Formats: sequence, C-alpha cells, structure tokens
Amino acid sequence: MPELRQDLVTERWVIIATERARRPTEAGCEPVKSEDSNCPFCAGHEAQTPPEIWVARSSGGPNQPGWKVRVVANRFPALRVEGQIDREGDGIYDRMNGIGAHEVIIETPDHKTELEDQPVEGIATVMTACKERMLDLLRDERLRYILMFKNVGRQAGASLSHPHGQIIATPITPSRVKRKLEGAREYYRRKERCVFHDILRQEQRDGRRTVYENGGFLSFCPYAARFPFELCILPKRQAADYHAITGEEINQLADALKITLKKLALALNRPQYNLILHTAPARRARRRDYWDTLDQDFRWHIEILPRLTEPAGFEWGTGFYINPTPPEESAQYLRELTI
Amino acid sequence: MPELRQDLVTERWVIIATERARRPTEAGCEPVKSEDSNCPFCAGHEAQTPPEIWVARSSGGPNQPGWKVRVVANRFPALRVEGQIDREGDGIYDRMNGIGAHEVIIETPDHKTELEDQPVEGIATVMTACKERMLDLLRDERLRYILMFKNVGRQAGASLSHPHGQIIATPITPSRVKRKLEGAREYYRRKERCVFHDILRQEQRDGRRTVYENGGFLSFCPYAARFPFELCILPKRQAADYHAITGEEINQLADALKITLKKLALALNRPQYNLILHTAPARRARRRDYWDTLDQDFRWHIEILPRLTEPAGFEWGTGFYINPTPPEESAQYLRELTI
Repeated sequence: MPELRQDLVTERWVIIATERARRPTEAGCEPVKSEDSNCPFCAGHEAQTPPEIWVARSSGGPNQPGWKVRVVANRFPALRVEGQIDREGDGIYDRMNGIGAHEVIIETPDHKTELEDQPVEGIATVMTACKERMLDLLRDERLRYILMFKNVGRQAGASLSHPHGQIIATPITPSRVKRKLEGAREYYRRKERCVFHDILRQEQRDGRRTVYENGGFLSFCPYAARFPFELCILPKRQAADYHAITGEEINQLADALKITLKKLALALNRPQYNLILHTAPARRARRRDYWDTLDQDFRWHIEILPRLTEPAGFEWGTGFYINPTPPEESAQYLRELTI
Repeated sequence: MPELRQDLVTERWVIIATERARRPTEAGCEPVKSEDSNCPFCAGHEAQTPPEIWVARSSGGPNQPGWKVRVVANRFPALRVEGQIDREGDGIYDRMNGIGAHEVIIETPDHKTELEDQPVEGIATVMTACKERMLDLLRDERLRYILMFKNVGRQAGASLSHPHGQIIATPITPSRVKRKLEGAREYYRRKERCVFHDILRQEQRDGRRTVYENGGFLSFCPYAARFPFELCILPKRQAADYHAITGEEINQLADALKITLKKLALALNRPQYNLILHTAPARRARRRDYWDTLDQDFRWHIEILPRLTEPAGFEWGTGFYINPTPPEESAQYLRELTI
C-alpha cells in the first residue's frame, strides 16, 4: 500500500509509492518505447491492461478491439482505491495510507495518432471521457481532488509513447491547488470580480499574448509564463468545475486544444510537454463552508507546459522561474503560424 | 534589462530574462561541454570571465592563475545590479525591472575535481566564499533574498561542467521561501519550539533516515522526501542566517558535505543533482517587524536533490510528489556505504 507523508515545514504531501519502482521501465531512466509491437495501449492488446472502466466504441464487446477511447486503471498506481483512510502520527510527523485512484485515458487505438492529429470529434470524446470519469469518482466521498494530466515525451515523465492522459484522485487537496484557490478567493474578496474573468478580458483587449480564440475559449501565453511557449486555455463561461462542461463547450474546447497543440507541435517540432487540467476540489459536506465561494471566484482551466528548459537549483529553491522567452514573443510566433 | 512579472493568482514571480536566450549553449538543448580546452572557468582562462569579485589564492595577481576559489559575475545574468528598482502596473498585472545579482563561485581551477573530491579545506574555502559574498550583498538594501545553489549535470540545469556554484540575489522574497518561513513560524507559535530543532531530535532518536553526523551537522533523508536519495544537511546550532556560520562550523559543514556527496556519487554513479542553501531573507528596516521571530523559528539548511526522476504533470499540477523510494531505504544504503 502506498503511503502519504506530510512535510512538517511546508505542509506539502508526498506519495511514497514503492510499488511504482517495480515498473518495467523505471521512469526517467530508460527511453520511451516507440515501437508499437508490444504496446499495451494498442488495439488488439486489450488483455495487457486492467479491464476498461469507461469506453467509447463503434463495435466489439468489452475489452475487445473496436473502441475509440478507453479508460483503465493504472497497472502501477501511485494510489489505491481499496481500504479506508487511516491517518496517524509517526514521531513528530504525519502520514496516511495511500487511498485514491489512478486511471489511464487511452486516447486512441492507434499508436501514432497524437491528440492534436485526431479530428475534433475524437478530441471531444477524450475530453468527455475525462468529464465522465470525474463525475463517477466524485461519488467517492474519500476523494478530495481529481487531477487530469498528460505527459508527452520521456523528459515530461511519460513511460509509454502511445497517446494517453491520466487521472489521479487524491484524499487531500494538494497544497499548490489550495494556494491557487486562496489566491483567487483573495482577489475576489478585494475586487468582487473573478480573477480569471479579469485575465480573460485583459488578454482579449491586449491581444499580444493571444494564440487562438473561438466562441467558448481563449488560448494564450500567460503574462507571468514560467517557460517558453507556456500556454493557458481558459473557458469564457464562469465555471469552477470541469465536470459542469456542456456538450457544446466540449466541442469548442476540442477545437481550441487541436489548434493550440497543432501550432505548438509545428513551432517546436513536437516538443515534450505536460498538460494539466485545473478544476475545483470536490466539495462535500466537510469542507463546503471553506470553499463555498469557489463557484464565483475560481474557474477551471488548462495549462500546457512545454519542457524545453529544465528547472534547476534556483527554481527548486525559490519557486521563482527564469524564462528566457517573453510570452508576447511565444504567442506572436504561434498566432502567426499557419496550420 | 530583465523584467520581473507576478502571476495574478498564485503571486509567484518569474524573471523574463531575454538576454539569457543569447547564451552560447542554450540550457537544456545542448550537451554539457566536458572538454576543458575551452572552459572559461579553468586556470589560465581568467580573461574569459568578468573580473573576480572575491578570490582565495596562493599566488599570482588579480585575474591571474594561482587561485583556489574564484567568484565572478555571471556573463549571462538573470538579474542585473545596475539601476533603481522600478515597480509598475501593466494592465491588471504587476511587474518590476530585474534588479539583483547573479554570481558564479568557481570552486576549483581544475576542470575535473568535483566538490566532494576536494580536501575538506578546499570545500571549506568554497563555503567561505559563499558566506563572504552573502555578507557583501547584504549591504545592498535593494536585495531581499540571497540564494546559493549548485546545478550538477545537464538535466539539473548546468550549462558548463566545470565545478561551480551560483548565487542569485533577488529584489523580492520568493513565494516558496515565504511559505517555508511561514510554516516554521506557525509551528513555533503553536509549540514554542523550532521545527528544525524538533526534526533534528526526531532524526537523531529514530536513526533510520540518518546518513552521517558530526559535531556540528546531521545529514539525513527527509521524512517526506520528494525524490529518491533526497538529502538534507542541518546544523545543530540554531541560526537563521548562513552568513552567521563560524569558522569551526564551516569545517564541520565541509566534512558533512564531502562525506554526503561522496556517498551519493558512489551510490548512484555521480548522479545529476541540485544543491540548495536555504537561508533567512535579508532583514532590513522595512520588513523587520514581519520577520522578527526568524532567529528563533527558522534555521538555515542545505537540500540536495538528485535528478533521477522527472517531475511530470501530476507534480506540476499539484506540488504533490510521487517518490518510488522510501527515504529509510535511501538512507540505509548511503549510511552503510564505505567510502
């Protein structure tokens, strides 16, 4: 069973997940496998993964070929669903058992079709899978936060090259998420305006950091970007929870993702990157009072972080980033690129 | 002139340092040069660096061979010393000009002698250089925080392989530093004990995470380690400021660093790593009231972060780390290693 431990000074939690050390390819030590002959995520290899939890398919029976998007449990999970949450002291420290969920969204049966290469409907199905899994996981009262993310490339943490996303649900709200929520709440308290709405308006008015815009979403390089070509995709409609997205918005999001990721792939020759979907934490009875302003002050959004530079001692020590490329330059380059 | 920009939601600052993009080897894109023929940090190549700011030498004149440790300005600085601090709004955002200092501590004239390969006296001279530079930079009232760090290996952010450390002084206290200070203050407020002293006692009593101990320092793997073989070197005497270290303590620290880094190099075949010296922020008139409890609640310390795994989407999204190796296992391995 994995274990969660809390740092006494920063209150940051870590997952001590010894089972992951037994993964066949230790992350970051061996190259990503690109051959598809042995890929457990390819069509025809369904038996190599745990059974599907969610699926969109055009033909075939459960765990058979004919699927378009498939969600399965991670075979080497960082957290496990079984058991009750058990918190305890350990000397002066705090720990709890590693209850949670860790799932894989296999975006396509085809090993070589990156997310941005799919038609808009295909991307919409992937983002629907994410919504449906969140709605299901939210029924589990032990889970406080659900993160959907995507690692592309070995340096970005991927151990398999077949296009896939991941969902991790944690029994605590992570410290970085809390700070984002608290920052948004503090801004609202001062101004009575949602900080994400102010950012949307500012970026639309200014335009220098805009990459793409459609009826539902704005794709732009953030003002205080940490990395060259860092991107944010922000919905125009106020909503704290990704799982409240409508069918029409999913299509608009799929369009924004396709164009943004396609431009990024062209500009930087398919860079390694992380994609992160920031949504509000689960609000169940216990903490509802604490987060009761979220619906007005927080808005879900997507961050895309290309891994062109490595965070080094300065970044690790301070949380302060050195970015050699102004976001205005990254955005102009992407905006003007014809795809 | 570099520019500092603040993220509106998280209050995190970033440095937009366009001048660094002009570095001859763009960090993270080209391999670290290991040939010493062209290395600007090697003895005999003093003219290739800016003039020395601090030096320990056995012979020769300024900027001539005969030195043991040499501190020079970074040729591609993230922040610049010249000018007055100028803060301004930019639409709804905040920015300031990039005032600060960025120096390089060249640890040895010999390209191949890693820090841990130096005799204890050599390491003590490097750590003295760091103290002396901090004392000098603290006289500049514009500077709020001074970070000493060391990047070893390309993946850890190093662009030159010649052994060196760096010092960056920033005009604001970085958000991650503030959180560490606030965590320590909150702990003291509750318990009337320094959290670092409690950690020292707990680790000495428990012993499972200890790597090495001498009269002045404890070297151990932290309870909530984010990475396999993550290490902390903690002084036994309460002191918030590294620059208050005594001559005897510098020798003890040099011994602890030599043994800890030597064990790490042997255990993992010279891994890439970041070393970070966490010290208290500069306390000048303006903020003295805010940080007036630091002397009792915060203690300077060193973190060593081997770069064996890559932070990925989950870590970027949550600040929550997945560590496949329990610190007890890392520590036992290092403790029992004969060097």
